[in-house]
Amino acid sequence: MRTRFVLIQTSHAGNVGGTARAMKVMGFDDLVLVAPRWANVLRREETVQRASGANDVLAKARIVDTLDEALEGMDHLCATAMTPRDFGPPTRQPREHFAALLGTPDLPAPSRPGGVAFLFGSERFGMRNEDVYRCHACLSIPTDPLFGSLNLAAAVQLIAYDWRQALGGYALAPAAAPDRPLADARALAGMLLHLEQALVAVDFLDPEAPKKLMPRLNQLFNRAALSDEDIHILRGVAKAMLQTAEKTKR
Amino acid sequence: MRTRFVLIQTSHAGNVGGTARAMKVMGFDDLVLVAPRWANVLRREETVQRASGANDVLAKARIVDTLDEALEGMDHLCATAMTPRDFGPPTRQPREHFAALLGTPDLPAPSRPGGVAFLFGSERFGMRNEDVYRCHACLSIPTDPLFGSLNLAAAVQLIAYDWRQALGGYALAPAAAPDRPLADARALAGMLLHLEQALVAVDFLDPEAPKKLMPRLNQLFNRAALSDEDIHILRGVAKAMLQTAEKTKR
Repeated sequence: MRTRFVLIQTSHAGNVGGTARAMKVMGFDDLVLVAPRWANVLRREETVQRASGANDVLAKARIVDTLDEALEGMDHLCATAMTPRDFGPPTRQPREHFAALLGTPDLPAPSRPGGVAFLFGSERFGMRNEDVYRCHACLSIPTDPLFGSLNLAAAVQLIAYDWRQALGGYALAPAAAPDRPLADARALAGMLLHLEQALVAVDFLDPEAPKKLMPRLNQLFNRAALSDEDIHILRGVAKAMLQTAEKTKR
Repeated sequence: MRTRFVLIQTSHAGNVGGTARAMKVMGFDDLVLVAPRWANVLRREETVQRASGANDVLAKARIVDTLDEALEGMDHLCATAMTPRDFGPPTRQPREHFAALLGTPDLPAPSRPGGVAFLFGSERFGMRNEDVYRCHACLSIPTDPLFGSLNLAAAVQLIAYDWRQALGGYALAPAAAPDRPLADARALAGMLLHLEQALVAVDFLDPEAPKKLMPRLNQLFNRAALSDEDIHILRGVAKAMLQTAEKTKR
């Protein structure tokens, strides 16, 4: 789905660079600045520094005078604001709104939008009421009620993350090692029997009064999700214990 | 649950400030720095500037020489790393791991930890293998496979957000206006009937060949989630249409 990030009247060059980087790590590259404080903000040193390699996003970014120009081709607008406005669109948490927008297996969305724009106001004043009124939803990132001061680029990072996750997300980087095959229940039971003999042999476990030692160990190893190799190692330990105990009898 | 953020060998003062702010907006305040590049990093100008009001987090933060000292009292350690390590702990996406750690309604966690530490490596080199090996899980934030360069403070922001959400999250800021009470089905049906008469009166709707106009309008108004006030307004429109049509007959 086409996705655009729109920064309105942004003051700090660092935030523009941070926004470009935050977008790019989540696979987005359509950035539009409406009337930024610095006309040359896309080329300022602090911008490029904070973008840290997201130069293509900066190169593609557009600067426009009005919000109207920024929204061309977008059919679903999300404001971001800490405080709901009277007569404004409904305020929603991002995850909740994205699930409703894209639909879920139980509840398909009635009509998915073609292009979604996320609007971010200035660092000092946030969004103007009249800009919020145009939007279909007002996204509020849930923060500590006593300290809701979210940095602009950090807010972009959170929205880009939640939106990317809602769109299906990225898979994890492939693991260097293949998944560890787990030992089956029979292998575990065999190891426990072996270990029990060893514990008796070293006089730790009294077979006349075993209490709950073996069930406890069983639970412990269950939680540890042992592989066949782990079983092999633990059986080695039991064997060594038994051999040692045998020697004491000579 | 006790939660600590541990930055290991951090180079950039701005990232320490950004981390403090990112933690505080999500309600966390326990920050420990292991061997940062600058001994006075907590008081540097860039740190304080980027912390933007999270001064109490900086004031409480501790600087220590070794990771051991940083982990005192924590019993569940999460590394953060882009690339999985051989022989390291399992690599998981944050949301997935947090759900498993805290349990879900269907699947309660076997034993919830008492203190969770999130470890972040240096900007240039990430985490050392030996530090990753100590951890119970390796969290990998899913990013674009072609550009995984996540800023340190941005990574802290995402983990703090996902962890706060997993712990139950914050409610939205209360809306300034009370929820709009929706009109009930009877009110909607009455309005539609009124509107239908009006549409016939203005010769838009041919009662002999109505096609699917009224069902379509019904669906449209359903999606619009009308309030009683909306109904009142639409009935006013219908009434005005009827009155106008009446006048044409005189």
